[in-house]
Amino acid sequence: MRHGRHAAIGVFDSGVGGLTVLKALMERLPLESTVYLGDTARVPYGTKSGEVVTRYSLANAQALLEYDIKALVVACNTASAVALPALEAQLPIPVIGVIVPGAQAAAKATRNGKVAVIGTPGTIASGAYQAALAAAAPSMEVHARACPLFVPLAEEGWTEGAVPQLVAEKYLGGDFLGGVDTLVLGCTHYPLLAQIIQGVVGPKVTLVDSAKATAERLVEVLRERELTRLERGAVERHYLVTDTPARFLEVGARFLGRPLSGARQIDLHVK
Amino acid sequence: MRHGRHAAIGVFDSGVGGLTVLKALMERLPLESTVYLGDTARVPYGTKSGEVVTRYSLANAQALLEYDIKALVVACNTASAVALPALEAQLPIPVIGVIVPGAQAAAKATRNGKVAVIGTPGTIASGAYQAALAAAAPSMEVHARACPLFVPLAEEGWTEGAVPQLVAEKYLGGDFLGGVDTLVLGCTHYPLLAQIIQGVVGPKVTLVDSAKATAERLVEVLRERELTRLERGAVERHYLVTDTPARFLEVGARFLGRPLSGARQIDLHVK
Repeated sequence: MRHGRHAAIGVFDSGVGGLTVLKALMERLPLESTVYLGDTARVPYGTKSGEVVTRYSLANAQALLEYDIKALVVACNTASAVALPALEAQLPIPVIGVIVPGAQAAAKATRNGKVAVIGTPGTIASGAYQAALAAAAPSMEVHARACPLFVPLAEEGWTEGAVPQLVAEKYLGGDFLGGVDTLVLGCTHYPLLAQIIQGVVGPKVTLVDSAKATAERLVEVLRERELTRLERGAVERHYLVTDTPARFLEVGARFLGRPLSGARQIDLHVK
Repeated sequence: MRHGRHAAIGVFDSGVGGLTVLKALMERLPLESTVYLGDTARVPYGTKSGEVVTRYSLANAQALLEYDIKALVVACNTASAVALPALEAQLPIPVIGVIVPGAQAAAKATRNGKVAVIGTPGTIASGAYQAALAAAAPSMEVHARACPLFVPLAEEGWTEGAVPQLVAEKYLGGDFLGGVDTLVLGCTHYPLLAQIIQGVVGPKVTLVDSAKATAERLVEVLRERELTRLERGAVERHYLVTDTPARFLEVGARFLGRPLSGARQIDLHVK
C-alpha cells in the first residue's frame, strides 16, 4: 500500500446512509477517487451495542485497506460515536468521523448557546455528540434524543405526508427543544427528512448536517499530511456491499442524488 | 449429541420477535426444555437477501446444535421463507418453520377462500407464503404485501395511538384486502400490533398468527419421531444472543409476556 497522493479516500457506513456524506466529499474534492463500503449484511448499527459496532467497523476498515486508501472517513454516526478510538489505534492512515465536525459546525451555528442533537439509540447513548459539543463550547446547553423510527421511514421513502409528520411531532414536540436555536441531524439518514423536521421545529431553528463539515475536515487533514491529489487524472468510484447489491443500488440513488454505476458484493470475516 | 427425548427444543430468530413463538411452544409443551438464540448482532433479517439470511440461519443452527437439541424451530418468518431447504439438508434433526403451519391455519380459517398475508420485504419477496397457501388450498385467492415499518414500531413499543394507526391504514387500506376474510400475520413482530391491525381491517377479518400452529406442528413431529419428553423433570430455559443482552432482555419481556431470567452472549463465526 502506498498511501500516497494518488490513493483513494475510503468511506464506510452501515448501509446507504453514508452516501449523503460521500456526496458531500465528491462535491468538495472532485479530483479524489473514492471507495465506499456499505455493510448491508449487518445494517443497521444504530440499535446495536458499542462492542458489536466496533467489531464491524474494524472489519470494514480492513476490507477498505485492501484498496490502497490514504484516509478513512467513518460516514456512520453510530460507528463514529463508538469505534473511532479503536480505528485510530489500529489503522496506519488518518481516520475522520462525522461527529466532531458536526459538533463544531453546531457550535458555530448557535447564537444562544442551546443546541439539540438527534440520532440513533447507539449514537445518543454513547454520549459522543454531547462530549464533542461540550469540547467545542463548554458552556453550551445540550439536549439529546434518540429517534429510532426516522431510519426506517427514510429507507421506506416515507419522507413526506402524515406519517413522518406525526412521528417527527412525537419525537421533537413537547419540551424537548427547550428554546434551542440549532438542531444537529446526528444520523446520515435524517437529511432525507429535513423538510418535515424543519416544519416541526420551526424556521428559527438551524438544522446542522455533518456531511459538509466532515468534507471540510477531510480537506484540512489531507493538506496537513500532504496527501491531497494535485493533478487531474482518472477518478475512480468503487462501491462495495456485504449483502447482494440490488436494494443498495435502488435506495442508494435516493441518498447519493444520482444513479450508482454498480456495486460489488464482498465477504467480511467477522464474528 | 444424543437427540433423545431428554434433549431440548432449539429455537432461533433474528432477534426478539421469535419469543412470541417460544411463548406458544412453552405453553403447549411445558415439559420440554428450550434453547432460544436471538441473532441480535445481525438483526433484522427481513430487509436482507435470501443468500445472507441463509448464511446466518446455518450459523445459528450450528450454535444451537452444541446444546444437544432434538428439533429446531425456525421462529423467524424470513428465515423460514428462504433458509428451510438449506437447514433441512444440513441438520441431523427435524426442522420446523413457521410458514407452512401458518398457511395451513389460514386455509382452515378462511370461509370465502380469499386470504391476505403481510410480512417483511424478504418474506413477501420470497413467495413462500403464497406457495404454502397454494399448496394448502390450490384455488385460494392470495394477496400479499410487505409492511417494513411494523417491525420498528413494535420494537419501539409504539403499538397504540395515531402513528401505528396511520401506518396500518397506509399498508392495509385501499384495495389491498379485496374482500379477504383472513389475514396472516407473517412476521413474529406483528402480533404486538394485532389490536391496531384488527381495527383497520374490521371485525369480519380473522387474524392468523402462526405461533400456535407451529407449536401444534412441533407436537406432531415429536410424536412421529418418538422424541416427546414423557416424564416430568427439571425444565431448562436457555437464552443466547449475539449482541450484548441488555436490550434483548428489556424488549424481550414484552414479547415473551414475562421477564427473562438472563441471556448469554455468544460469538457466531460467520462471514
